[in-house]
Amino acid sequence: MSTTISTATSVTTGPIQGSTKQYLQSGDDIRVPVRRVHLTNGEHLDVYDTSGPYTDADATIDLDAGLPHLRAPWIADRAGTQLDAARAGTVTPEMRYCAAREGVSPETVRVEVAAGRAVIPANRCHPELEPMIIGKAFAVKINANIGNSAVTSSIAEEVEKMVWATRWGADTIMDLSTGKNIHETREWILRNSPVPVGTVPIYQALEKVGGDPTALTWEIYRDTVIEQCEQGVDYMTVHAGVLLRYIPLTARRVTGIVSRGGSIMAAWCLAHHRESFLYTHFDELCEILHRYDVTFSLGDGLRPGSIADANDEAQFAELRTLGELTKIAKSHGVQVMIEGPGHVPMHKIVENVRLEEELCEEAPFYTLGPLATDIAPAYDHITSAIGAAMIAQAGTAMLCYVTPKEHLGLPNRDDVKTGVITYKIAAHAADLAKQHPRAQERDDALSKARFEFRWHDQFALSLDPDTAREFHDETLPAEPAKTAHFCSMCGPKFCSMRISADVREYAQQHGLDSIEAIEAGMAEKSSEFVDAGGRVYLPVESVTSENR
Amino acid sequence: MSTTISTATSVTTGPIQGSTKQYLQSGDDIRVPVRRVHLTNGEHLDVYDTSGPYTDADATIDLDAGLPHLRAPWIADRAGTQLDAARAGTVTPEMRYCAAREGVSPETVRVEVAAGRAVIPANRCHPELEPMIIGKAFAVKINANIGNSAVTSSIAEEVEKMVWATRWGADTIMDLSTGKNIHETREWILRNSPVPVGTVPIYQALEKVGGDPTALTWEIYRDTVIEQCEQGVDYMTVHAGVLLRYIPLTARRVTGIVSRGGSIMAAWCLAHHRESFLYTHFDELCEILHRYDVTFSLGDGLRPGSIADANDEAQFAELRTLGELTKIAKSHGVQVMIEGPGHVPMHKIVENVRLEEELCEEAPFYTLGPLATDIAPAYDHITSAIGAAMIAQAGTAMLCYVTPKEHLGLPNRDDVKTGVITYKIAAHAADLAKQHPRAQERDDALSKARFEFRWHDQFALSLDPDTAREFHDETLPAEPAKTAHFCSMCGPKFCSMRISADVREYAQQHGLDSIEAIEAGMAEKSSEFVDAGGRVYLPVESVTSENR
Repeated sequence: MSTTISTATSVTTGPIQGSTKQYLQSGDDIRVPVRRVHLTNGEHLDVYDTSGPYTDADATIDLDAGLPHLRAPWIADRAGTQLDAARAGTVTPEMRYCAAREGVSPETVRVEVAAGRAVIPANRCHPELEPMIIGKAFAVKINANIGNSAVTSSIAEEVEKMVWATRWGADTIMDLSTGKNIHETREWILRNSPVPVGTVPIYQALEKVGGDPTALTWEIYRDTVIEQCEQGVDYMTVHAGVLLRYIPLTARRVTGIVSRGGSIMAAWCLAHHRESFLYTHFDELCEILHRYDVTFSLGDGLRPGSIADANDEAQFAELRTLGELTKIAKSHGVQVMIEGPGHVPMHKIVENVRLEEELCEEAPFYTLGPLATDIAPAYDHITSAIGAAMIAQAGTAMLCYVTPKEHLGLPNRDDVKTGVITYKIAAHAADLAKQHPRAQERDDALSKARFEFRWHDQFALSLDPDTAREFHDETLPAEPAKTAHFCSMCGPKFCSMRISADVREYAQQHGLDSIEAIEAGMAEKSSEFVDAGGRVYLPVESVTSENR
Repeated sequence: MSTTISTATSVTTGPIQGSTKQYLQSGDDIRVPVRRVHLTNGEHLDVYDTSGPYTDADATIDLDAGLPHLRAPWIADRAGTQLDAARAGTVTPEMRYCAAREGVSPETVRVEVAAGRAVIPANRCHPELEPMIIGKAFAVKINANIGNSAVTSSIAEEVEKMVWATRWGADTIMDLSTGKNIHETREWILRNSPVPVGTVPIYQALEKVGGDPTALTWEIYRDTVIEQCEQGVDYMTVHAGVLLRYIPLTARRVTGIVSRGGSIMAAWCLAHHRESFLYTHFDELCEILHRYDVTFSLGDGLRPGSIADANDEAQFAELRTLGELTKIAKSHGVQVMIEGPGHVPMHKIVENVRLEEELCEEAPFYTLGPLATDIAPAYDHITSAIGAAMIAQAGTAMLCYVTPKEHLGLPNRDDVKTGVITYKIAAHAADLAKQHPRAQERDDALSKARFEFRWHDQFALSLDPDTAREFHDETLPAEPAKTAHFCSMCGPKFCSMRISADVREYAQQHGLDSIEAIEAGMAEKSSEFVDAGGRVYLPVESVTSENR
């Protein structure tokens, strides 16, 4: 990298509270990272870990040197893309890595990739990457957008945002920089990123022509794409579905075209009265992306920017074109995912997934929220988490986060964390709803800890142990309160958790501790009780003795 | 009130930024409050207003005197409950008031109340109340829990929390105080509350017996209920469905019994080996509540406290009993709503509503969230907003908020606001999804303002204008930025909103500004264009002139 911006101390390192970094060996060549949560009862739970070496207490972090080239030997051995390999029946090391992370067989991964229902965004020029998979058969993933703009932010801040976002669970990041130093910012991010990095190349291309969309050309765009492929960008948003004839369909919308990429291309098309060069040169673009195994993220440049515009003709016309482009990309052996909205009321969400699956051969859907209402700027992480959870339940494979600053400003470090945690919630809620294997393990472990008043374990098992502990300590800071059999909500006398622990003890003492016993014995015992005026249960002093 | 705790300055008063309080006259005797949002384009939008006189710049607030007795003449004229009146074909002033607030006919209100599908919680002894209606045919409502505990909080704080919660949109509040001064705290809240106040009388009854559940008696409970009825409590949570025979069904749960009321009654039942006095004395309870027109909120004492326990036999057994009790209450002319969970994964949410409607004759469902996952303490306003939006879309009439402090501590003033705004989002998202009349007006107005760069109007139309403005100003504080045709996300050159405004102008200039024109003309013009290599659109200088 051309300049030295940093020392190891400029990004956040060290394990998350209550956890350590572990690696699970899979075969000879694969070590899959997990966050191991250590519980006070001697048990532990391993959870999916996106944070790279930064949370490894034993790792040496040197931003100037970048991360180790984990994938170097795998890349050297292979020609073609993950899609080519999967179709040829080859299970790549990346596929085995993803399989180990997801707890599925490598063959499951291969089949999903071969069918185009899943992608492994992994540019040959990004050897630092810890491979991951995006597809509806796997855990729902989340993306965090970072990047500077003409108005704010520095390179060092953006690198820290990447480390910070992945620390809290971002599965991929997108560098959406639009200001100065786009190339250099991206270089620092890529060399230090353990997760796939996505970009929107049109932003940098536009920068090269002084910000005038009409001055864009295919050649400038193509060279920008190649430049970014060479750097190691893993997936690229391409708004190739914004066709000239669709643009007037947006004229009567409440919010027109809200995608930056979409509006840039619309401006170009109108000014030149020509079809988008992204569309007319799409085959050539496929050839370039194929060479590096860069994944298409076909952008929804005409996505609705308001509830009023959801599921309209402009949006679905573009989606049909994205379906056509999906087939072309796949015919070139290029992996594809499809971007989705935006702003959509709840009753119109599922239609988006069904149509995307139908038109785009079930290519992984990658949606921005959607926001379920327009009326809560400053809370759009929440308005969109509602839509995100629902659309993921319906089959969306990756969710692009929204931060509290959406529509108002650029996110700072705190906003990035809030956005990531909020989207981990939405993704996990969807995994539960899809009854994804192992998803409920963490809920059960946390709830068991909660019921048993193991406060330290509750914190450690939560998505954000630091904030959970901080909130608890605001009311009851003393260390004994973390082992006390009550909490600040009810105080010592009322605690319902305590009382129901006593119920359990009572049931055990009376042989009512199994479903069988309850089903076999309780119904008649209960009716006996009701008939006889209540002589089934003996008094249990312990029910209240600890509550006084 | 026995002591003077306050002056007018101890609670938050004055209009919300960008709005004023207005009253819409309806008939001779009804003045319905609205929050009128004033827009910079000369238009205005009236939105539902729960905040009482506190946001009226012309009102004199005197907490010691309490609010004016708005309902006094209406109460004097009536015997019986709203349910009695509705069944008799009488439209009460309260019904007309609710109708005006909801924008429906008074007859619609009467029919829904008569059928038991809606309730108007309005104790005869709470004349300060501005009536509101809870039912699935109306806008989804939200409740905010306040109240001190043995550990924290003072009376003055709780009164301010009530004012604060209703300022931001709480439709009802529940006083869940469990510590000292329960009666006095409630008195201050009631005399100053413009919204219905709910309680859980068992908490105060338990306080009277020194916190020992086994020492509770029907008589102590009954006297507590009468005391609270006399004070003006509008609805009461009664856990009369926690039957002795259901208790062992919770023994194998991950989190047993998590409801405080439920666990208190379980402890009592087990200790005395007798059926719950709430169940055995339910008829007598109905007679008391009928006298004051207090609404039952039949509590779900066995609600699931974790994902693992959702929709289990204990939960649904209790729900069946609540159905039985609903019929009894209605036979006494008492209004009823039914409380619901809790912690429920998304795929199990709808079943809760369907079963409640089937078993409880569509009595208004009033749910706590539900939380869609257990793994995010400190973010449970969000985990639960996901579930809340979905369950409200399915027909839940009122949502009990959850704050970020849930499971960790008692909410402070900021937490109350966050909880309320989050739940306004969930409720509004559901109103949109149910295509509730007028719901989308506010989204459209805000999105139109956003598209036209009317920043002040965006703030004013949002659920929380203060925070929206604050976030915007963090990046672009100068006043000119609020009228600038760009924002901090893209900067002046890239603005997609600006570009799409230009698209609209282009379409208008070329006669493509109507759906008809687009449909009639564009298809062929577009294919002409495609066929001919692009000569349909003329260059439009204005597309980019303002973007440079």
